Amino acid sequence: MYMRFKLTIEYAGTRYSGWQIQKNARTVQGEIERAVREVTAATDFELYGSGRTDAGVHALAQVAHLDVATTLPLDPLRERINDALPADINVVRVELTSHKFHARHDATARSYLYQITRRRTAFAKPFVWWVRERLDTGAMRRAAARLTGFHDFATFTDDEPGEKSTTVAVGAIEVSEDGDLILVRVVGSHFLWKMVRRMVGVLVAVGRGDLADEDVARLLREPSGVPARLTAPASGLFLESVSYGTEPPAARARLLGVEAHRP
Amino acid sequence: MYMRFKLTIEYAGTRYSGWQIQKNARTVQGEIERAVREVTAATDFELYGSGRTDAGVHALAQVAHLDVATTLPLDPLRERINDALPADINVVRVELTSHKFHARHDATARSYLYQITRRRTAFAKPFVWWVRERLDTGAMRRAAARLTGFHDFATFTDDEPGEKSTTVAVGAIEVSEDGDLILVRVVGSHFLWKMVRRMVGVLVAVGRGDLADEDVARLLREPSGVPARLTAPASGLFLESVSYGTEPPAARARLLGVEAHRP
Repeated sequence: MYMRFKLTIEYAGTRYSGWQIQKNARTVQGEIERAVREVTAATDFELYGSGRTDAGVHALAQVAHLDVATTLPLDPLRERINDALPADINVVRVELTSHKFHARHDATARSYLYQITRRRTAFAKPFVWWVRERLDTGAMRRAAARLTGFHDFATFTDDEPGEKSTTVAVGAIEVSEDGDLILVRVVGSHFLWKMVRRMVGVLVAVGRGDLADEDVARLLREPSGVPARLTAPASGLFLESVSYGTEPPAARARLLGVEAHRP
Repeated sequence: MYMRFKLTIEYAGTRYSGWQIQKNARTVQGEIERAVREVTAATDFELYGSGRTDAGVHALAQVAHLDVATTLPLDPLRERINDALPADINVVRVELTSHKFHARHDATARSYLYQITRRRTAFAKPFVWWVRERLDTGAMRRAAARLTGFHDFATFTDDEPGEKSTTVAVGAIEVSEDGDLILVRVVGSHFLWKMVRRMVGVLVAVGRGDLADEDVARLLREPSGVPARLTAPASGLFLESVSYGTEPPAARARLLGVEAHRP
């Protein structure tokens, strides 16, 4: 009997061509589908993620669902799948869910974290954007306020124009500091392709003093290639959480400890 | 005029065949010497480390010295060297030091940290030893007490017998827990080849219940292949600090945040 499973997955995206399965490319979805086939011998299923992540982007709690028939209890199922996965993909949780649940359609909010560091570190390169200059986080917060709310983010995406609406409600953008680390947390119902990385790129340009507050408002109103040129690198970006129903997206206290090994 | 510089270096050892320069292998010493040649145009120097680290072993604060002539001030010198280094090697500090200072001969204590985790994580694989079983840290502490002090560690090393003394004074072994993470900190004047990894391997065997307290004492007294077979993987090991004179080795509060991204 087919059951629907909800998977919560963390991955380091560095070695992958993103989440979505592609021919001749190593993808996170592809690896998990292969592992599930190995463990359950099922061949006729598809893994539906809450959304795609790009090449090099990480996830702390991507959510996906799939229908398979298995007699394995949940924990052994999770462990067997993990044993069949490479070390940089980890299924954190497997739950039974309703046949009506859909990881993408039912997601009500998504939260991303972006990690910037001012300190060169030998350990964190795949998980940060290293920005040498001191950034004015006050200015970044004021610019973040301009991007928060209901706006047309056409200049912040490479999505095909006309294919879907480029108007998105951004619920919150938080800029916080922890030593040499700056964390940008962006929460919204959904995001366009490359949108979060372009928002972060624009905020960093503001932090550097290369863009003013008012420029940011103008980037939302007028056609511009500026957000595209400022796109932040994939390495610093983490899909933090996906929420369903009325639960708010779970916040993680802190990210990989870039600063942790400091004396 | 030649000046002697003291370098403090952190590195992720994963991609390297250890610290010591070798032909046809990528080593940390080799990378730093190449970077210094690029920056100073010097060709006739040698970089002396406080000691070797094996393939895959990391360092939070390796210390090394070298003699070069340069007109660059310390901070630009450090930045230029870092710019010429791969991202997983980072010179944290460059200091001018006495011509009498020797990174290896003058080192009075070394401290190593070993990181064990019970939780599979997508991000930490290169920096931990993943042990699935729950370990009895009380038993590990009692066994650690047996290894502390002045002992013949002949069974704990692959150093050639007779080449140098295998008697070593281990100053302290601390076993601490932080969530699913177990940290073993070993401090001593010096260590033999593979000694720390074998000590950790033996402690984990005790934690699993595969070895008893008394077995550990016997491993120090009688010839045995057991410590070699139990050698802990290089991935979990960090050279934490090297101290000179009477300063105690600097302790780092915590390591790379394996647990940090948990909800």
